[in-house]
Amino acid sequence: MTAFSRSSLEELLKKRFFYAPSFQAYGGVAGFYDYGPPGCALQSNIIDLWRKHFVLEEEMLEMDGAIITLADVLKTSGHVDKFSDWMVKDVKTGDIFRADHLVENVIETRLDGDKQAGLMTENDATSQNDKKKKKGTVQAVKLDDATKAEYEEILAKANFNLQTNYEWELIFYIDNYTGKELGEIISKHNIKSPETGNDLTEPVEFNLMFESSIGPTGHLKGYLRPETAQGQFLNFKKFLEFNNDKMPFASASIGRSFRNEISPRSGLLRVREFTMAEIEHYVDPNNKKHARFDEVKDIKLSLLPRHIQSEGKTVPIELPIGEAVEKKIVDNETLGYFLARTHLFLTMLGIKYDRLRFRQHMPNEMAHYACDCWDAEIQSSYGWIECVGCADRSAYDLTVHTNRTKEKLIVRESLAEPLIYEKIVLEINKKIFGPKFRQNAKTVEDYLTNLNEEQLEALKKELEDGNGKTMVSCADGNQYEISSDFLTIQKQTITEHVREYIPNVIEPSFGIGRILYSLIEHVYWTREGDEQRAVLSFPPRVAPFKCLLVPLSNNPAFSELVRDLSSKLRKLHISIKVDDSSNSIGRRYSRNDELGTPFAITIDFQSVQDGTVTLRERDSTKQIREKTDTILQVLEDLVEEDVTWEEALIKYKQI
Amino acid sequence: MTAFSRSSLEELLKKRFFYAPSFQAYGGVAGFYDYGPPGCALQSNIIDLWRKHFVLEEEMLEMDGAIITLADVLKTSGHVDKFSDWMVKDVKTGDIFRADHLVENVIETRLDGDKQAGLMTENDATSQNDKKKKKGTVQAVKLDDATKAEYEEILAKANFNLQTNYEWELIFYIDNYTGKELGEIISKHNIKSPETGNDLTEPVEFNLMFESSIGPTGHLKGYLRPETAQGQFLNFKKFLEFNNDKMPFASASIGRSFRNEISPRSGLLRVREFTMAEIEHYVDPNNKKHARFDEVKDIKLSLLPRHIQSEGKTVPIELPIGEAVEKKIVDNETLGYFLARTHLFLTMLGIKYDRLRFRQHMPNEMAHYACDCWDAEIQSSYGWIECVGCADRSAYDLTVHTNRTKEKLIVRESLAEPLIYEKIVLEINKKIFGPKFRQNAKTVEDYLTNLNEEQLEALKKELEDGNGKTMVSCADGNQYEISSDFLTIQKQTITEHVREYIPNVIEPSFGIGRILYSLIEHVYWTREGDEQRAVLSFPPRVAPFKCLLVPLSNNPAFSELVRDLSSKLRKLHISIKVDDSSNSIGRRYSRNDELGTPFAITIDFQSVQDGTVTLRERDSTKQIREKTDTILQVLEDLVEEDVTWEEALIKYKQI
Repeated sequence: MTAFSRSSLEELLKKRFFYAPSFQAYGGVAGFYDYGPPGCALQSNIIDLWRKHFVLEEEMLEMDGAIITLADVLKTSGHVDKFSDWMVKDVKTGDIFRADHLVENVIETRLDGDKQAGLMTENDATSQNDKKKKKGTVQAVKLDDATKAEYEEILAKANFNLQTNYEWELIFYIDNYTGKELGEIISKHNIKSPETGNDLTEPVEFNLMFESSIGPTGHLKGYLRPETAQGQFLNFKKFLEFNNDKMPFASASIGRSFRNEISPRSGLLRVREFTMAEIEHYVDPNNKKHARFDEVKDIKLSLLPRHIQSEGKTVPIELPIGEAVEKKIVDNETLGYFLARTHLFLTMLGIKYDRLRFRQHMPNEMAHYACDCWDAEIQSSYGWIECVGCADRSAYDLTVHTNRTKEKLIVRESLAEPLIYEKIVLEINKKIFGPKFRQNAKTVEDYLTNLNEEQLEALKKELEDGNGKTMVSCADGNQYEISSDFLTIQKQTITEHVREYIPNVIEPSFGIGRILYSLIEHVYWTREGDEQRAVLSFPPRVAPFKCLLVPLSNNPAFSELVRDLSSKLRKLHISIKVDDSSNSIGRRYSRNDELGTPFAITIDFQSVQDGTVTLRERDSTKQIREKTDTILQVLEDLVEEDVTWEEALIKYKQI
Repeated sequence: MTAFSRSSLEELLKKRFFYAPSFQAYGGVAGFYDYGPPGCALQSNIIDLWRKHFVLEEEMLEMDGAIITLADVLKTSGHVDKFSDWMVKDVKTGDIFRADHLVENVIETRLDGDKQAGLMTENDATSQNDKKKKKGTVQAVKLDDATKAEYEEILAKANFNLQTNYEWELIFYIDNYTGKELGEIISKHNIKSPETGNDLTEPVEFNLMFESSIGPTGHLKGYLRPETAQGQFLNFKKFLEFNNDKMPFASASIGRSFRNEISPRSGLLRVREFTMAEIEHYVDPNNKKHARFDEVKDIKLSLLPRHIQSEGKTVPIELPIGEAVEKKIVDNETLGYFLARTHLFLTMLGIKYDRLRFRQHMPNEMAHYACDCWDAEIQSSYGWIECVGCADRSAYDLTVHTNRTKEKLIVRESLAEPLIYEKIVLEINKKIFGPKFRQNAKTVEDYLTNLNEEQLEALKKELEDGNGKTMVSCADGNQYEISSDFLTIQKQTITEHVREYIPNVIEPSFGIGRILYSLIEHVYWTREGDEQRAVLSFPPRVAPFKCLLVPLSNNPAFSELVRDLSSKLRKLHISIKVDDSSNSIGRRYSRNDELGTPFAITIDFQSVQDGTVTLRERDSTKQIREKTDTILQVLEDLVEEDVTWEEALIKYKQI
């Protein structure tokens, strides 16, 4: 097999209109893509399988929410304040760069240069340095040992080498570098604007959300959602009710989200507008077991846990997920369950097992509230890219929205046996209390009701010591006299029949575009000895089109058969492409292979005579010949993946 | 059957979380809705059927494009300049109203008041007028004849009574009223701010697109697309190539679009964010026949053509679409084909035939470039609402983008027989021409090359008359001497092998949310004698969930059967709801009916003994009892609508 060439693949994707930059005729703008017919169909098939694999399989509560989101919501979630990158400007041209990326690139290039210089003789090095500087070329310059060590430390601290700059879920990291620190590195290591060599400004924060205003007043601010998660959290109460108050359960959402990247790059991998599919699984924080964990426990995953990474290694270990959870490598069953289900989903799509790994976040990558977080990373020519994030977000999101809105996003659980305990309780006689304190009543009441048991006991003692009277200092800075005339403090037996808690959220979040692109790389190959004959070996269920329908030539004798067969295929909901162009049959098959269409039915002169047609399979190029109805039946089974091509070859007449 | 009550329906939709206003806990904002599990599933099923009915059936080229759209694109399409409404402000409170709606409401209310006053005795009228003014109540005030006539003329001119304010496709209407005219009506007829009675400002234009800026510079403007159409037009060249340069063909797109309405209202019918499905069918302007028109020609549609409306009538005629096209009531076969296909689609969903009509646009509703335009209007408690627009947009869009970008969005058709004709042709000898006119050469050349054949012939004659010399007046206002030394004008025989043309576009555009809401009204009813027992009779293929699975009680004997059956149903991709709550079986069936779930499988003690289960149908509440495998088979057929419930009742054991 010939070596992978990204440029050949990109050429194919462009020619067959899998996707293309948006508004090309208008000069385009980075980070926006239009999916053409095969890309769009591929995307729908991935989404359709996702829905069957996750939503239908587990009766998840799918919702479809607003993209434009009130600013207040994203203020509460933390996005308005924290969802930003640091940018620097070229002081003369005004060109803008993402500061962390720039530092990473420059330092990596310098370290590469050092390595090359080490490999060259003195003379080579001089002559190379004399050459005119070309953009992007590595300059072989030897670094002194101290600088080299410092560069390596900068990269290590930033975790750049682990591709965490492709972060996906929006939990807010403890930043590896603050803007100030990035500014210091830039100035200390003399980092300049890459094209012009000009100085750079200090890093400034840039929020990554697209902003707009709602309604005609111009005063109501909204953002395009950066994730679908917040819309799901806001509906938690409605979901719980819909689910007959039963826990645990999951909500899910598939839709477009937006991030105003400073410098979009790497094709579909870092874009400004993308389709994501997110699950929010709500669990009791005291019980993160999963009822169906047994069904997946023997599935082997390729895991890159924290302890391996901290040794500086990147070779994953292979473990059944059951064992990983047992050994506490993965925090809990529910998280483990979703890692395994994600593995099944991705490999079913056609992602290669040996190019898929689950990498655990390092403690400094995770939000303070997250318990554990694993990324499904898929290897492509861009490296190991995070395509799915599986995070345990704890109770963070539901808590902040509850606190902000006073809509309690909680679960009330009837206890099988009531919880009985004793508690020091304060009771206020409002009839006396109110008139006595008048406008200060609320201040005093707030003070009293906020006392904990220990404080109440102390107050009780003070009252007893002071003959039923004592002074307290309230929040307004004043002292007030408290009297046992209007309050009692005593031990009571409390019987609770209901337990209240805020659920924890386990969130598997899928980047559909990233998965789609990685999948294309995994299924792309060229036929032995002919680099021009490219094939995309999508599994039938994922393939954009299922079947090509080709008459041998445009002889009118074939038209009726084509019409009849297309109509029958449509009734079976099998998506087809009819190609009755005048190109040679080989040429038409090749086009088919490039679209990843797994099967082709050919109508020839024999078809007109005896009602048989041939069915060709894309990867093997082998064909069988049977009566039309038989072919339709086997095609249906092949497309549903109920029958493999190998099985069909045994059963039917190969030609 | 009890009379329809919108408030009861709305209560049900809220309780069962079909949809709910977005960000409710944050106070919400008009025009944004979240679809909960049943609404979301219903929407996906509608979209899925749309894709099968249109895209797969006709091999349309579906794309999925960017929502954020470069401002330049929408400048060219006309949206930046023309896609706006007139708004007026309360001068004191700053409250904003859409001027045309306000005028309509006030004038309709006054006309209603006049009607009521006519029905009352003098005394009644006085006492009514004495009552405290209540918001929204009609004041019975008699109008003088002149005023009444004027009011009626205002409404007639605006076509308000035909609900054209629910306009859907964004072709730009010849406005019925300009802002200035609306301002004059407001001032002449003493229209005030409705709640406060304060004066209103002059109408000002408000663009209905949400604006944002792309990238970190803040200088690149984008809008959220108001329709998916423009994204399709921009990709026309790629589509044509993908289609092997064959015409006619269609592109299609399903996705979210946005309109920043001044005052959203009527639930899902006028929102700020909505899902639409659009087809752009590209045809040769000289041939708008459709290859599959014969398949639909006998379908009868309920049509409200222009000539009936202009007589002030609203009773539609019923005609087979073939006859409507033949009689030129519908402009061409392709447009007729899509009207019929739209009719099939909507009735397949469950839209009632007698509450669906196709209304032709009046000439003053259409854009100057449109040839014909029909709306599919569905009747609901809000009136006849446009849910699908079918417009012949002519070559307008492809022309404006071609002119602006110089990317030619055209078709090149090889002519079977070359086109041979004679033409007066101008040839310039640039070697002499250039040096002679120097910096003015372009001005003179532009003048000459823009001359048509007649003008060229005239120029030729002048040159002959003037001894090979004559003066011409160019665009810069100067006169230049032209000489036959450097130009020849003569008749030539032209042979053309290729014909170039800009295709016309026929656009069926579907508002998914409007269809979804109208459908819910059409399938909603309550059981005889019990208003509380509501049912949503969705056809099985459209229903959000296909089957309820209920154990008779939560006796543990049933759990294994429930688990086994759910797993089998999931394998069949039949979406289920398991309800093992402790509610009575009747209560659980009712909840099921309210969700519109067509079938329910009940597991009881007999099931444990003999492996049979019952299958209940929602509308009839009848049940059959068979072995599990038989029930699964018949359920699959029922869900796919291959078998009707009536047929199943005959074949299987009814209980």
